[in-house]
Amino acid sequence: MATHKILLLPGDGIGPEVMREVSKVLGWLTRAGVAAFETETDLVGGAALDAHGVPLSEDALGRAKAADAVLFGAVGGPKWAGVPYARRPEAGLLRLRKDLGLFANLRPAICYPALADASALKRELVEGLDIVIVRELTGGVYFGEPKEIVTLEDGQKRAVDTQVYTSGEIERIAAVAFDLARKRRNRVASAEKHNVMKSGVLWKEVVTRVHAEQFPDVGLEHVLADNCAMQLVRNPKQYDVLVTDNLFGDILSDVAAMLTGSLGMLPSASLGAVENGTRRALYEPVHGSAPDIAGQNLANPIAMIGSLAMALRYSFGLVEAADLLEGAITRTLAAGTRTRDIAGPGVNAVGTAEMGEAILREL
Amino acid sequence: MATHKILLLPGDGIGPEVMREVSKVLGWLTRAGVAAFETETDLVGGAALDAHGVPLSEDALGRAKAADAVLFGAVGGPKWAGVPYARRPEAGLLRLRKDLGLFANLRPAICYPALADASALKRELVEGLDIVIVRELTGGVYFGEPKEIVTLEDGQKRAVDTQVYTSGEIERIAAVAFDLARKRRNRVASAEKHNVMKSGVLWKEVVTRVHAEQFPDVGLEHVLADNCAMQLVRNPKQYDVLVTDNLFGDILSDVAAMLTGSLGMLPSASLGAVENGTRRALYEPVHGSAPDIAGQNLANPIAMIGSLAMALRYSFGLVEAADLLEGAITRTLAAGTRTRDIAGPGVNAVGTAEMGEAILREL
Ligand SMILES: CC(C)[C@H](C(=O)O)[C@@H](O)C(=O)O
Ligand SMILES: CC(C)[C@H](C(=O)O)[C@@H](O)C(=O)O
Repeated sequence: MATHKILLLPGDGIGPEVMREVSKVLGWLTRAGVAAFETETDLVGGAALDAHGVPLSEDALGRAKAADAVLFGAVGGPKWAGVPYARRPEAGLLRLRKDLGLFANLRPAICYPALADASALKRELVEGLDIVIVRELTGGVYFGEPKEIVTLEDGQKRAVDTQVYTSGEIERIAAVAFDLARKRRNRVASAEKHNVMKSGVLWKEVVTRVHAEQFPDVGLEHVLADNCAMQLVRNPKQYDVLVTDNLFGDILSDVAAMLTGSLGMLPSASLGAVENGTRRALYEPVHGSAPDIAGQNLANPIAMIGSLAMALRYSFGLVEAADLLEGAITRTLAAGTRTRDIAGPGVNAVGTAEMGEAILREL
Repeated sequence: MATHKILLLPGDGIGPEVMREVSKVLGWLTRAGVAAFETETDLVGGAALDAHGVPLSEDALGRAKAADAVLFGAVGGPKWAGVPYARRPEAGLLRLRKDLGLFANLRPAICYPALADASALKRELVEGLDIVIVRELTGGVYFGEPKEIVTLEDGQKRAVDTQVYTSGEIERIAAVAFDLARKRRNRVASAEKHNVMKSGVLWKEVVTRVHAEQFPDVGLEHVLADNCAMQLVRNPKQYDVLVTDNLFGDILSDVAAMLTGSLGMLPSASLGAVENGTRRALYEPVHGSAPDIAGQNLANPIAMIGSLAMALRYSFGLVEAADLLEGAITRTLAAGTRTRDIAGPGVNAVGTAEMGEAILREL
């Protein structure tokens, strides 16, 4: 039986709590003989900054590169609000994305039937919602140079960020989106601002070409990013796969996640290119570090446990184990077990650890 | 009686139809002796491109500069999808904003009680919603240089857009937001991505300083743009005034507008700096050119007529006339008159012209 090497990076805020539940599930999977896992744990974000003075040590980066998959919790919090830009907690995550080449971020936005009423939207608009945002993750304004603040002669400051995309970067993310759509409802919407941005012009041109040359069987629609944000609110079910750049993807995927009413439930995968049959991958919940509820056993561990299920499926080929784990989550919810974020009014909520144990019992 | 010079730029799609209703209202105001208006009409967007080969003629720009206020309809449509970037319809609007120095875009998002059920959100989340997005309109990634697509040696293309902000640009838009908040519920939220963008770092720093030095009495909160988009969906009423940059403002104001269920009802004002007691101004509906329903007498003219009301109030100091006009709109809605976009199921909808006439009757 192959041993799968996993690096756990719990990070800050609620990260360690939700990761603890993942460790329990990994322990169960090993004991049940499903697969053999070798896990290491390291620091990232504010936790790494406190310990090593940097938000990601070279050592941790090396371990991430050597692992078959990285499970990532969350980073950041008010404690590190004042640290210099280059050492802020988020820089640890951005460095992982960039240095592992994780250019494709898949963010499913699924509305769990049991939770449709938790959505801000009317039930009929979100019930059955199942879309995936494919966000480009290693380009755009996140990494483009120059990125600087300079002081001008008149004493003013001037800040610059640079949005850059090459046709190659757009091609590979478009291919991921079309490929995914073929396994789903066969429709892709591509969002940009070609009416204002040159990167949007190139984005639209390349997506159109990749579609015509390699995926003519998939439905393709172009939509302006501002209109797309509106459409997500008006009628999210019109979309299947939505592909967009790093910055628009940051915002649109958060809107889509919030629509579902299930923010604490949504996992995500960040994937690199396939090389020799394998690809680097990092799995993380869509939610953030939620410092306001950290350390109180209040966080919902399902997004983090669901991220493990994605890792089983996409990095280790353990499709049955992934089904098993996702089934256990669904049954736990169906049985009415709720953490505070998804408990309706009048419903008794359980804690992070209790939710983890309820899922283990269902396994 | 002073004569107010207005330039009408109906533009494309439903622009001309909704502007026609504004002309009727201006006619009534003149006949009723409320004020004297001198109006000129010119082309912009696709219409100007078809006639003059450019989306805004020098002549039209000159008239806009000479006017006391510009009323703008909407631009763009599939007919001009293939035109070169520099001549696309939107370039006409962007040039007006830039050359008139209209740096402050005020976009109210108001949920009209009669229309709360038209929102995708649950009634209790949007009923009574009244926020204003203050969007910086002449800087950022919309205008920064370099903005280009180049072909690399390996045949790939590379697109670049540049997000630039100076402290001065941020100061003046922050002051507009704080000033406005004082006349409202005295709270400002400022949205950026300081965790990823240097322009976000400068934005946060300058807003904090302007607040401390000039507006310490106003409540101030900083929020990440992605989180802000989520919060707008989760609980929009938490906001009063929301200040943000050009690109985030484009998206967040569209989300906010869509939340209200009243997209066809929302006017906006784009204002320049005050010089010698006056300021340049352009008023336009938040909605776009809606080519799919253009020319069919289906569009809702209220956002355009409401834009005239804003002009009366902010550019001409005709506060009573603005109240009168807004009162007529409210009474028309209260009487149950609805265009198609805001008619609930089973409600008979009137056309663009009929809605305009109904408002005239209420005047
Ligand atoms: C933490 C932050 C740097 C990150 C981003 O902006 O990409 C987060 O918002 C996300 O979406 O994963
Ligand atoms: C038409 C387009 C250029 C414009 C923008 O992106 O600013 C529009 O979306 C708006 O919000 O006014």
